[in-house]
Amino acid sequence: MYDVARIRADFPILSREVNGRPLVYLDNGASAQKPRAVIDAMTQVYEHEYANVHRGLHYLSTVATERYESVRGIVARFLGAPDPEEIVMTTGSTEGINLVSYAWAAPRLEAGDEIVLTVLEHHANIVPWHFLRERQGVVLKWVEPEPDGSLDPQKVIDAIGPRTRLVAVTHMSNVTGTVVDVASICKAARERDVPVLVDGSQAAVHRPVNVAKLGCDFYAITGHKLYGPSGSGAIWIRKERMAEMRPFLGGGDMIREVGRDVVTYNDPPMKFEAGTPGIVQQIGLGVALEYLMALGMENIAAHEAELAAYAQARLSGLNWLNLQGTAPGKGAIFSMTLQGGAHAHDVSTVLDKRGIAVRAGSHCAMPLMEFFGVTATVRASFGLYNTRDEVDALVEGLELCHDLFA
Amino acid sequence: MYDVARIRADFPILSREVNGRPLVYLDNGASAQKPRAVIDAMTQVYEHEYANVHRGLHYLSTVATERYESVRGIVARFLGAPDPEEIVMTTGSTEGINLVSYAWAAPRLEAGDEIVLTVLEHHANIVPWHFLRERQGVVLKWVEPEPDGSLDPQKVIDAIGPRTRLVAVTHMSNVTGTVVDVASICKAARERDVPVLVDGSQAAVHRPVNVAKLGCDFYAITGHKLYGPSGSGAIWIRKERMAEMRPFLGGGDMIREVGRDVVTYNDPPMKFEAGTPGIVQQIGLGVALEYLMALGMENIAAHEAELAAYAQARLSGLNWLNLQGTAPGKGAIFSMTLQGGAHAHDVSTVLDKRGIAVRAGSHCAMPLMEFFGVTATVRASFGLYNTRDEVDALVEGLELCHDLFA
Repeated sequence: MYDVARIRADFPILSREVNGRPLVYLDNGASAQKPRAVIDAMTQVYEHEYANVHRGLHYLSTVATERYESVRGIVARFLGAPDPEEIVMTTGSTEGINLVSYAWAAPRLEAGDEIVLTVLEHHANIVPWHFLRERQGVVLKWVEPEPDGSLDPQKVIDAIGPRTRLVAVTHMSNVTGTVVDVASICKAARERDVPVLVDGSQAAVHRPVNVAKLGCDFYAITGHKLYGPSGSGAIWIRKERMAEMRPFLGGGDMIREVGRDVVTYNDPPMKFEAGTPGIVQQIGLGVALEYLMALGMENIAAHEAELAAYAQARLSGLNWLNLQGTAPGKGAIFSMTLQGGAHAHDVSTVLDKRGIAVRAGSHCAMPLMEFFGVTATVRASFGLYNTRDEVDALVEGLELCHDLFA
Repeated sequence: MYDVARIRADFPILSREVNGRPLVYLDNGASAQKPRAVIDAMTQVYEHEYANVHRGLHYLSTVATERYESVRGIVARFLGAPDPEEIVMTTGSTEGINLVSYAWAAPRLEAGDEIVLTVLEHHANIVPWHFLRERQGVVLKWVEPEPDGSLDPQKVIDAIGPRTRLVAVTHMSNVTGTVVDVASICKAARERDVPVLVDGSQAAVHRPVNVAKLGCDFYAITGHKLYGPSGSGAIWIRKERMAEMRPFLGGGDMIREVGRDVVTYNDPPMKFEAGTPGIVQQIGLGVALEYLMALGMENIAAHEAELAAYAQARLSGLNWLNLQGTAPGKGAIFSMTLQGGAHAHDVSTVLDKRGIAVRAGSHCAMPLMEFFGVTATVRASFGLYNTRDEVDALVEGLELCHDLFA
């Protein structure tokens, strides 16, 4: 039984007020709030068990190292990855995708080689590829979604040509909640020997993920969206791809030997983790993922599907509202504009006065904004702790905006 | 009045025991412990004020953004930097130095160009330059310290030739505590139009730093050594150098516009901060630096100088102990080996049994280990909360090791 009231009690911030109203936090797509277990775990480490990892033999260092390294196994379990050694700790999806761009793609892609990506992508899964276009003449091939924001996997598959070296695709749009059929894309790409990088920043938050079943090569996640600490994250990298990667950041831990004229590198995954890592936030990420797995990602997905259906029904009833993205099976992320010229930022400000946190802007997805013919939308993005009452509060707030700005 | 007992009470972990003995934490060079103010500030944000930054207009996002952005000013004040806009937030010195390597050096250095660096450097200030050697034929010119671990600045200046494009030098050795006369090096380098990168990972922890007076171009610091959270950090970059840098990590926040065939970038420092940053740990870093400035870096330096002199005197009295590095004016970092074959790791283990945390190994400084003709040392690195009694405990522990292994 998914008891949302009990779950809400796990998140200290949800009991606060904003502008004299109970906080209605619908900005989960930007970052999620943290359960007490995550906050307490970090405090516990700092107060009782803190030291650097991998570097010391003393008690505290050993304890910290064991806790830190155990997170690799937790992430692997969370993602259905066959081997914890395929998990590289990162500061989030942005670093994860840049790691792939710099360490795997940059040394092997030549001018005229192609990367297939979609118009649904977040800038984190666009700009690292633009670097390769700017710096070494790589060609970006864009696949458009359908008008409802859904993505036909066949269009991605058809875009794969003889010069395609990589497909970079989101598993769930952060703007529309569109779920992409990544498995079909991976299957076809694999037949053509083209690796697939999946941006799992949103999908992993809202549904069970199994990278082995998806058949991708890279799967990036971000801790702060997964109810974990800011600055935490990981990327799963298929072993064969890892073996093809050169190092990215240079420093301590990622080396075997350093001389004046020679340097040799550690084995993966350490080869890709330079310097002192985000020890305590990664430990917190482990706790967050354990929390999610204890709730059950299937249960979270079911709760959010119900919320999404309810929100979809209620928002569709507002005939002065445009919803950007209504793909079947979409996640509980809603982007909208109000007819009649109310700017997204104004709507956000009015909602904030009622304690409702949404995001207004281009959501780090300018190509998708352009596709929809808008410069900014209001986005309400739900999480595991949101309720039907909060959908109602959102709708009431939007109605007020309509009255104010129409 | 520097009241070390009162200061120790600010650090929760210092009241714990390890192996039945009061913790004697002498592994500050690897990472420092955190005062309650830092821990509490992070808890406060997560429990009451957490949201993503830069992206939302709602109350929590505004609060988080203001707190996060205020850290830029705190870091600038801490480093004597003229302008907060010259501060780039990083995850630590490793990322900061890699940023310079990838964004400033890589696009402008050609085969045969030289980087001058010293044998004192930490791997974080070596491996990023080895990348340029491996990938584009840059030549590394090494400057050796004196037998006592001191560094003659004139040797660095003399190593600057017509092909030198950068000097990369530590401000304080993490192995020997040697303080480098960076100001003299910068003055001579500036006359030759050669920028200087300073690795301030250790120096900024132990003494007042003023980048304007030093005259360098890049100054990297690491939060977790500065009594701040893991995964926090910053680098000061002179405005002219910033203007010469291309972006490094690609993603949200660092762009102005993203299209399918074009991308334009944000102004510095945002141009160099991609994606959701380490919001809460950077806020914690700000609190840590405020804590240090309230104690007074001059006072911390004076306390540690007294400790260093006492430790130096006591350790010099052990005629079966070799100290690596005895440079005049050195910081309170002592590397040592025991005559008679006791391995550093064994010494560390015995000390740990008495609650004393030191580090054994090569300290991410293999070229310096080679210079001293050792493969590993025991390192006792002191911080602002250490005491004379802890020096005595260390000496007693070493005497026990000598008895055990001699």
